[in-house]
Amino acid sequence: MDMNMTQDEAAIRRLIEDWASAVRAQKVDKIVDRHANDIVMFDVPPPVEVRGIAAYRETWPPFLEWLREGDGTFEIMKLEVAAGDRVAYATALLRCASKAALAKDNTPRLRLTVGLRKIDGAWNIAHEHHSFPADV
Amino acid sequence: MDMNMTQDEAAIRRLIEDWASAVRAQKVDKIVDRHANDIVMFDVPPPVEVRGIAAYRETWPPFLEWLREGDGTFEIMKLEVAAGDRVAYATALLRCASKAALAKDNTPRLRLTVGLRKIDGAWNIAHEHHSFPADV
Repeated sequence: MDMNMTQDEAAIRRLIEDWASAVRAQKVDKIVDRHANDIVMFDVPPPVEVRGIAAYRETWPPFLEWLREGDGTFEIMKLEVAAGDRVAYATALLRCASKAALAKDNTPRLRLTVGLRKIDGAWNIAHEHHSFPADV
Repeated sequence: MDMNMTQDEAAIRRLIEDWASAVRAQKVDKIVDRHANDIVMFDVPPPVEVRGIAAYRETWPPFLEWLREGDGTFEIMKLEVAAGDRVAYATALLRCASKAALAKDNTPRLRLTVGLRKIDGAWNIAHEHHSFPADV
């Protein structure tokens, strides 16, 4: 472990890596189990915003089906965490594409920002923002 | 002022509103003056990520030209802040489009996440993530 990394930063890195593992394992219950009830997500597809844990959960089955059908990857390549006493955020680049698309170009192009709050001593994900750069 | 709002939350709201005002005023020096030197931005157009204050600054003149030519709007419609002792994040929806586009549909569609760090007692923007929902 990097000795400059705080316990909070290390806990948040584990939380986000575990979340990505749950996505790869196609386990919806596990994907959503460290999220705040009032989570706000800005997702790749519409709508503009998704509010609340029930709506957040509903976004996953169609994505997991797409990932399964394309034999796709959902892999965190670059994760950086800034943690305070009870609020933190993290940024990451992900390799998120079908096997066919990655065969042509495997550059990590999915950008992820995560906002976290410490609730009853444990870090929870209260915000996610996912996007690809626009086609120009 | 909302009595449930902390001083840090209020300071961050002002900082972000002042930043948006500087964008509308087309003042690049003012747009970049509360940013950390190591800012990481995930912008709407490519590249995937923009690192460092010099690269961040370079993204603004083309955007400001586009805003000016389209007689456009850059207006924060919904701003939510979570602030801890030295790390904070904020989410917002913005009305960001040309006058012609807004005449057809004025729904705020630009999503913004901001990550902040307190440096020498003052809040600084260390991360911005801008995106529109993908066309599907």
